[in-house]
Amino acid sequence: MTPKIASFLASQPATPCLVLDLDRVAENFARLRAALPAAAIYYAVKANPAPQILRLLAEAGSCFDAASLPEIEASLEAGAQPEAISFGNTVKKPSAIARAHAFGVPLYAFDSREELEKIAAHAPGAKIYCRLAVNNVGAEWPLSKKFGTTLEKAKELMLAARGLGLMPHGLSFHVGSQQTGTLAYELAIAEVAMLFTDLKNAGLPLQMLNLGGGFPTRYQEDVPEHDEFGTAIMDTMIRHFGNDLPDILIEPGRSMVGDAGVVAAEAVLVCRRMPQDERRWVYLDIGRFGGLAETEGEAIRYRITAGDGATGPVVLAGPSCDGVDVMYEKTPYRLPLGLKSGDTVLIHDTGAYVTSYASQNFNGFTPLAEHYI
Amino acid sequence: MTPKIASFLASQPATPCLVLDLDRVAENFARLRAALPAAAIYYAVKANPAPQILRLLAEAGSCFDAASLPEIEASLEAGAQPEAISFGNTVKKPSAIARAHAFGVPLYAFDSREELEKIAAHAPGAKIYCRLAVNNVGAEWPLSKKFGTTLEKAKELMLAARGLGLMPHGLSFHVGSQQTGTLAYELAIAEVAMLFTDLKNAGLPLQMLNLGGGFPTRYQEDVPEHDEFGTAIMDTMIRHFGNDLPDILIEPGRSMVGDAGVVAAEAVLVCRRMPQDERRWVYLDIGRFGGLAETEGEAIRYRITAGDGATGPVVLAGPSCDGVDVMYEKTPYRLPLGLKSGDTVLIHDTGAYVTSYASQNFNGFTPLAEHYI
Repeated sequence: MTPKIASFLASQPATPCLVLDLDRVAENFARLRAALPAAAIYYAVKANPAPQILRLLAEAGSCFDAASLPEIEASLEAGAQPEAISFGNTVKKPSAIARAHAFGVPLYAFDSREELEKIAAHAPGAKIYCRLAVNNVGAEWPLSKKFGTTLEKAKELMLAARGLGLMPHGLSFHVGSQQTGTLAYELAIAEVAMLFTDLKNAGLPLQMLNLGGGFPTRYQEDVPEHDEFGTAIMDTMIRHFGNDLPDILIEPGRSMVGDAGVVAAEAVLVCRRMPQDERRWVYLDIGRFGGLAETEGEAIRYRITAGDGATGPVVLAGPSCDGVDVMYEKTPYRLPLGLKSGDTVLIHDTGAYVTSYASQNFNGFTPLAEHYI
Repeated sequence: MTPKIASFLASQPATPCLVLDLDRVAENFARLRAALPAAAIYYAVKANPAPQILRLLAEAGSCFDAASLPEIEASLEAGAQPEAISFGNTVKKPSAIARAHAFGVPLYAFDSREELEKIAAHAPGAKIYCRLAVNNVGAEWPLSKKFGTTLEKAKELMLAARGLGLMPHGLSFHVGSQQTGTLAYELAIAEVAMLFTDLKNAGLPLQMLNLGGGFPTRYQEDVPEHDEFGTAIMDTMIRHFGNDLPDILIEPGRSMVGDAGVVAAEAVLVCRRMPQDERRWVYLDIGRFGGLAETEGEAIRYRITAGDGATGPVVLAGPSCDGVDVMYEKTPYRLPLGLKSGDTVLIHDTGAYVTSYASQNFNGFTPLAEHYI
């Protein structure tokens, strides 16, 4: 937790709320740029679309990866140039493609012939890139089944793109979110490089490789530093592409904002469910439907603190009447034995993928407040 | 789908949206009252908190089961009397208890000593009821681990309540949501009746038994009719309580509004993920984070239609870049072979537990529109 956040929390804001230190976002951007100077950074807006973050990144020279038309509009409002935006969702409504094209957004993702034809019809002449399905080994929030196509199909579609009046620009992949190792990047780059060569030999030299996102935030276990990813990625790129490096894009979201934010929550009830239980149940005023959606299957295991003192095991649950609104039942968590209703509980590194998941009013609870400081 | 909904949909409202026929809610209320005339109906506001529904039910004479202070406020605004409201969440902030008490809300749930003490401190003299953990056999959305206590602990807490200045009023249980059989009610009533007798012998006659919710909506498989639940419940009540029946409360939510609503969605992309796939992937403009949260683990399997014609197997996914935003991959679904991007897809019986789960802006998508007709 940064000193700025600690000082803000000392004023005891109403809970639940996210407090996010914008300086940390600026630092993360600078660090990532230093770690991969050859890459253009396209911030994954979906990680946290707060205007304060988008403005800061636009000023720092970031580009933007948008999942939808509203994310494109938010980026433009924050000062991004249309040329700095990539429409990265492979699933887009025709009306959204047409509007993005009218704004001047140049770059569109696809992974199927149907989507390619939609782009051709509604964004004629646009630059397109094809998303490949790759191994998500090492990811804590994997993505592979829903997106991406095969090398063979990608080749066929890229070769067809010119005939549809589009500019076949590059390829992309995604190694899965909260990717904790460099191996998946190395494997994916090796595969994609073969397709680059293949297409070049077929008369279609490509200009761009989009490495997607996935760079991790440190929750509880150590994860590689940005530098380590940067070195592994560039070594692999040079091994496979030599001096003929394509433009490199990356789409960090979590690694840009995750560790910049802390959620302050209140323990609403602390009790033992059955008299013989060793573990206490701690019910917070935020849960899976209040923003902590990535605790589904206990996939993302946030660091959680609640002051000092001897600790004992706990189950962590949300405030709603929904039985599945339980964050951690299998993962061992410990909180102070003196914890009681009304005490503050901090959920660390929650700057990414929390606020936007929050339900509009499940069980009558309004979304958490957001403070960008 | 009711004729009113069909006629509204013919006007092609922007998708995604919920269209809900209020007449059906009125019919469901009347049917449930007829099936269980001895029970007071406390509508579970969390199922759908739309003011139009709350007003209709308040006028029809329904009471309200509220999960939070905002749900209490919404019920009061819709015309409910404070006496007709139960604060049914066993996890409540002290400030919410105090405010509810100031409004005149008489009835509070609890299942732990800690909560009982909070109620005593902030709603002195209130009527309280203890929630028991019971078998959720037959429920498609079970709830048992997070809530409820043992018979033994309930007895101890009910006996302690008077000493805390509270009115020990009754007991409750919940057989799990989308409960498809009557057995769980029969087992639970048998258990609870023993505790009634036990407490009476200890000098504490109770007045009320809250049977909770759980009554199902027909999605794809047949479920028992309200009458069947009514008969099974009353037979069991009489068998165990004889002529000394307590006041009976029920908290229907899903069964009151589920089949009154239809979500109209758009197919954003229809494609085969891999060339050899027999199944097409159909990406809708609504997904797990746009309101279809109960498709988690494919627990609730909505009926889904998209016009006529020969059908083939499909996987159904949402529009976001999130890999877990897939509704049905294991459950066999079939949609017309001619289905294409831009076509309307209807998700039936979505009046309950959809709108309120919708995330405020995940991936930039705003919550679905709501039309109450």
